Amino acid sequence: MSSIAELIKSRASANSYDPSKPLTRYEIGDLVELATHAPTAFNLQNWRFIAVCSDEAKAKLFPLAYNQQKVLDASVTFIVCGLLGEDALIASSLKPTLDAGIIDQATFDGWVGAAQGMYKGNPSLQRDEAIRSASLAAMTLMLAAQDKGLVSCPMIGFNPTAVAQAFGLGDGEVPVMLITVGHTGGANWPPKPRKPVAEVLAVV
Amino acid sequence: MSSIAELIKSRASANSYDPSKPLTRYEIGDLVELATHAPTAFNLQNWRFIAVCSDEAKAKLFPLAYNQQKVLDASVTFIVCGLLGEDALIASSLKPTLDAGIIDQATFDGWVGAAQGMYKGNPSLQRDEAIRSASLAAMTLMLAAQDKGLVSCPMIGFNPTAVAQAFGLGDGEVPVMLITVGHTGGANWPPKPRKPVAEVLAVV
Repeated sequence: MSSIAELIKSRASANSYDPSKPLTRYEIGDLVELATHAPTAFNLQNWRFIAVCSDEAKAKLFPLAYNQQKVLDASVTFIVCGLLGEDALIASSLKPTLDAGIIDQATFDGWVGAAQGMYKGNPSLQRDEAIRSASLAAMTLMLAAQDKGLVSCPMIGFNPTAVAQAFGLGDGEVPVMLITVGHTGGANWPPKPRKPVAEVLAVV
Repeated sequence: MSSIAELIKSRASANSYDPSKPLTRYEIGDLVELATHAPTAFNLQNWRFIAVCSDEAKAKLFPLAYNQQKVLDASVTFIVCGLLGEDALIASSLKPTLDAGIIDQATFDGWVGAAQGMYKGNPSLQRDEAIRSASLAAMTLMLAAQDKGLVSCPMIGFNPTAVAQAFGLGDGEVPVMLITVGHTGGANWPPKPRKPVAEVLAVV
């Protein structure tokens, strides 16, 4: 078991995977389960995950991800989708929180009203929210994978329209990121240097 | 030290903070340092963090975040910004990776060219990327805070235009999220229930 700081610092985007070591369905489900503990506005959980595992599905994704070999070699490539149309989602997503007694009816009603007021007729905010939620889940998934001794790589190099069509995404589903996950192959880069904190942080 | 799975599952968005326990500048810098280990496309590192700590800065942010008490009570509220205009950023962000010998000159040139080709004249992709990168960093920061025994809360309830103006953000800086961080106050919610994995995952 590593400390979270060690995990965060040791994670690096991996290009090379061992194609002979698949993940089980249980392992894939476990990664997604952990990813869904990421926070979302109003606990919307406006995301969906497609795990591309089979040879057939990989062959379909490969050219849509610009022939990146890791899509074929990694055990799984997750298509991490953010969902638009949050005004329809909010009540169903939040209901279990009400039922569990964590929030009361007044808070539930207030949040549902607030979310509907914010998102309705605001496609730009809906898109922002889809990308935010999917990205929060994506980061959680990558750290969870790292903790299990796996490597991963987030990818924006794909044709979102073609991916949406090929994998049957709904109109309200935005493919925000692909993430390859698997056992490391022969040669992966170490973590890349980051800018000094002083360059990116202001304390006021 | 917790396992990452325990950390992920125990993190909950916190509304209540102990205002008597400030974080040091070192602690704040450490959280941001860890956050910057999040991945970005082409290692762009297209982010900036403003740590709102002083009474004066908190008083300025408070009304712009719709009078949410936690902005006053938490030790710090981070304004997590994503940066647009990546075509100017890419070479400077990636140069240390070349200098460290992690990638060679041909890869460097290829990435810079690819990034400039993708982002230039594409404000929608630039905005998506700003939100993606800032959100990946935000999730890393929240998990790092959790590991240090702190609590946090991501917030989209603020006026982005007013925050940008009040805190002097540049034209290319998008305030993607606020994150309050501090020691827990009296009464915080437990983690809210999530949808079952079967509802959000398809394996193909």
